[in-house]
Amino acid sequence: MRNTAVLLIACPDKKGLVAAIANFLLRHDANILHADQHQDGAAGLFLMRVEWALQGFELGLHHFDEAFSPIAALHDLTWKLSLSSVRPRMAIFASKLDHCLADLLHRHHAGELYCDIPLVLSNHPDTHWLAEAYRVPFQHIQVNHDNKPEAEAQQRALLEAHHVDFCVLARYMQVLSPEFIGHYPNRIINIHHSFLPAFHGAKPYQRAFERGVKLIGATSHYVTEALDDGPIIEQDVTRISHRDDIENLVQKGADLEKVVLSRAVRWHIDNRILVYGNKTVVFD
Amino acid sequence: MRNTAVLLIACPDKKGLVAAIANFLLRHDANILHADQHQDGAAGLFLMRVEWALQGFELGLHHFDEAFSPIAALHDLTWKLSLSSVRPRMAIFASKLDHCLADLLHRHHAGELYCDIPLVLSNHPDTHWLAEAYRVPFQHIQVNHDNKPEAEAQQRALLEAHHVDFCVLARYMQVLSPEFIGHYPNRIINIHHSFLPAFHGAKPYQRAFERGVKLIGATSHYVTEALDDGPIIEQDVTRISHRDDIENLVQKGADLEKVVLSRAVRWHIDNRILVYGNKTVVFD
Amino acid sequence: MRNTAVLLIACPDKKGLVAAIANFLLRHDANILHADQHQDGAAGLFLMRVEWALQGFELGLHHFDEAFSPIAALHDLTWKLSLSSVRPRMAIFASKLDHCLADLLHRHHAGELYCDIPLVLSNHPDTHWLAEAYRVPFQHIQVNHDNKPEAEAQQRALLEAHHVDFCVLARYMQVLSPEFIGHYPNRIINIHHSFLPAFHGAKPYQRAFERGVKLIGATSHYVTEALDDGPIIEQDVTRISHRDDIENLVQKGADLEKVVLSRAVRWHIDNRILVYGNKTVVFD
Amino acid sequence: MRNTAVLLIACPDKKGLVAAIANFLLRHDANILHADQHQDGAAGLFLMRVEWALQGFELGLHHFDEAFSPIAALHDLTWKLSLSSVRPRMAIFASKLDHCLADLLHRHHAGELYCDIPLVLSNHPDTHWLAEAYRVPFQHIQVNHDNKPEAEAQQRALLEAHHVDFCVLARYMQVLSPEFIGHYPNRIINIHHSFLPAFHGAKPYQRAFERGVKLIGATSHYVTEALDDGPIIEQDVTRISHRDDIENLVQKGADLEKVVLSRAVRWHIDNRILVYGNKTVVFD
Repeated sequence: MRNTAVLLIACPDKKGLVAAIANFLLRHDANILHADQHQDGAAGLFLMRVEWALQGFELGLHHFDEAFSPIAALHDLTWKLSLSSVRPRMAIFASKLDHCLADLLHRHHAGELYCDIPLVLSNHPDTHWLAEAYRVPFQHIQVNHDNKPEAEAQQRALLEAHHVDFCVLARYMQVLSPEFIGHYPNRIINIHHSFLPAFHGAKPYQRAFERGVKLIGATSHYVTEALDDGPIIEQDVTRISHRDDIENLVQKGADLEKVVLSRAVRWHIDNRILVYGNKTVVFD
Repeated sequence: MRNTAVLLIACPDKKGLVAAIANFLLRHDANILHADQHQDGAAGLFLMRVEWALQGFELGLHHFDEAFSPIAALHDLTWKLSLSSVRPRMAIFASKLDHCLADLLHRHHAGELYCDIPLVLSNHPDTHWLAEAYRVPFQHIQVNHDNKPEAEAQQRALLEAHHVDFCVLARYMQVLSPEFIGHYPNRIINIHHSFLPAFHGAKPYQRAFERGVKLIGATSHYVTEALDDGPIIEQDVTRISHRDDIENLVQKGADLEKVVLSRAVRWHIDNRILVYGNKTVVFD
Repeated sequence: MRNTAVLLIACPDKKGLVAAIANFLLRHDANILHADQHQDGAAGLFLMRVEWALQGFELGLHHFDEAFSPIAALHDLTWKLSLSSVRPRMAIFASKLDHCLADLLHRHHAGELYCDIPLVLSNHPDTHWLAEAYRVPFQHIQVNHDNKPEAEAQQRALLEAHHVDFCVLARYMQVLSPEFIGHYPNRIINIHHSFLPAFHGAKPYQRAFERGVKLIGATSHYVTEALDDGPIIEQDVTRISHRDDIENLVQKGADLEKVVLSRAVRWHIDNRILVYGNKTVVFD
Repeated sequence: MRNTAVLLIACPDKKGLVAAIANFLLRHDANILHADQHQDGAAGLFLMRVEWALQGFELGLHHFDEAFSPIAALHDLTWKLSLSSVRPRMAIFASKLDHCLADLLHRHHAGELYCDIPLVLSNHPDTHWLAEAYRVPFQHIQVNHDNKPEAEAQQRALLEAHHVDFCVLARYMQVLSPEFIGHYPNRIINIHHSFLPAFHGAKPYQRAFERGVKLIGATSHYVTEALDDGPIIEQDVTRISHRDDIENLVQKGADLEKVVLSRAVRWHIDNRILVYGNKTVVFD
């Protein structure tokens, strides 16, 4: 059913880029289904996503690299090819709060997330039953101040053994080490329970309550070494009032977190996200 | 400053359309600034908007038609070329309620709407002062059951005399005749004060109040012969509660109407809207 | 933890009602935690919700009726007393689409819905595993054109056997008979997948797509004999674009349905909803 | 038409407060139109707004203080009485950007803001024509680094001469001195063009663009000595995408600023806002 290729491209902006790529695809008889481009005038960048049907495409994909490289070299393109038929392998990191985990598992079950989930990793055993109900493997690895390097080594070994492509931190309450993060550049998605950059760091709902804001938010972003400062993928907010105590904020926020995280995960899976600088383009 | 061309295209979907258009533009040394396309799979349609800088474009625009026609014929394209440097001429139709009129006049004054306003037409004299403050010509033409044909004839004469390109009904409380509408296909923009198709027709706030809805809306659309049933351009909603009486609904709704109508007007001016069937594509 | 009483009151508006109720409660040493009232000027109605701590309340609740009746008679009050410590018993009706069911079950598990769920009733066996994962009893009762009266009789017998207080139709795809509905006035909550009154009835996403609306919605309401026309409890919308096909509408709409239905269920459980005429007041 | 009294009350929470106030009003034959209260459990505070019709109220308002003082003393109430028939006098401070000024003037003209506007004060002469069109007095007072104390002295003299009750900073681009602010506690309303506390201080749209947020916001708040840190009255956000350059952010933000500022102004006029600590309760 899903039998398309997606090409993500970034390069210095200049004339003729759309034609160059369209012609390349046409030469191999591609039927373009979606094409979207964006020029960032300030940065002088050209960014593009193009998706075409593989049925009738005359270029064998193992020859794509060879055939496309001259064009890429000519125009100084950074590019990435993905096949929509290939399910990427997603690991979910969880702690005790399980609403995002349950939400992702159910969306996966409903066919909304086109990926495999070879692994749920948690620093608490509490959500074992949930993974089990959705027939997803669950690993409990305790993490604390003393054992973090060992715990991360264990986590990394499991991710590699399961050929994991990207990780989702579903309200995972541990900070990952720069070394760990370095192995998964733009491949770890976090959900932060505030409207970043407001209330980055700990206890955002508490601080939102104390500041007396009238809306609370949630932000999904790629994880970088700088805490809560990676490229933002998606954000949303909901209205609160003086009647809402912190418990209500947590509850209303949970609904945001689920939606904002799952959108980011779906867009990542569908190869819609291009990171440049510390920002993202999300092709729609 | 604004010195670009915009091409809007609709045609039966097939392979090679993006390449054909990109190549045509490249051949004449166009620097594409934005390009966006959409395939409607169900309708088998390809829809495109492409905008390029005229500086350096080697094809004189008076030769564009001649040069582009063979490609258009080959691919069965319906197309429209516009120049962003040309200010379209907009007439505003108003009645007594003046919030949309004031909003449009101020946006125009602030440089947000790249158009000329040669004419405000009203069936009431009340808003004369407002047009005057913004130095826009104002014409009062009374309309009632008996004189509608004559009134419309007068209106049409004025529109033609002022070379009006499109009309905006800014809470104009008269229904235009099919004949009048027929002269301005997809060139009359109306604001309806409900979330269409809910509460089309008269007194939408009253009926929303009676039904007990929890959100009210506004809809901007092109005017067709079928009342409140033309292609929708934009919609938005706002939350209400049991505390809001009808007067509050009217007040909250007015804020929606201004935003929803002005977006439609701006998109129309920027040649972002393609109508197909009874729907619109708004290229962003 | 939850040890409060909630009194919902409706009566003809007149002077002294707040004082009468506040004095009654003070006389019995109630500590009022929340009090909210609403006057509907058009309908001449006074509506109130008052919640007080039971700790220190000197009136035994089995004497409440006796003590309050004179005041109720004097002011012509319709009233209902509820105890927040009593978990109401909720039955969920489901069909094949399980996102609302999964959402309600998980919210219940997370402590967000203060109720018991003695029963999930479905006309398809598919969601059995889900109820089982959350340890909630599941009953499959097939319903078709021929057996509807028998099926409803079975359903009603189960509801009574399990002392069910109210029912939630979580995308249940069968229309209930007027007779069935009559047994649960304002105690059956439905989720309709459109912004009512737009697109009531069948296939709302399909029709929204065809009409070309720019937002889609969801509506939770109490079920009455008139299809999709009962008192609206909550509504919300989300933005769509020409890029969204019907499948996308279904997916985006599912997120709305979950949030809009779960809010209605929580407010019903917390005795925040007062129905009058065909409208609701939701005290916040 | 508007002939009601509004009482705003704050005091330590305890039993019997609702009854005490309701009884006082009933004793003088008040017909309560709206009453709303809020308990802040953490702060141990009781906050209330009650509005009643003056027709039939048997207590002369010049005796209200005397009559109510014993109750206020008994319960340690802080209170403020306002008459809805009295139009408060609002001064608008403006600079060059005139969208908020135009919006407030038009809402006032349309009867949406029940106040008088004796004065528009601007540090630029540009908006003179606008004030004139709406027949509102305009004063140009230049402000720069060197003359700030003198300029503020001039401003204050004008505010006093015109008996101004509260000030609205409609994108006024000068920081007021602590001394100036001290004369108008919780009586200066500002609009900040970000979702506070994100991007407080200068150039919020620029910084939002650079951070790559997916929503931008606006915040209205009372001005205190701490820049952009006063009690928040209202906030709202709108969605942006990678396609929006800074100019678009400014334009989209302007729509937010108008709505968010005008809501704050209306609520202030209607005596709906109670400040406590650095937060607000907005009674609805």
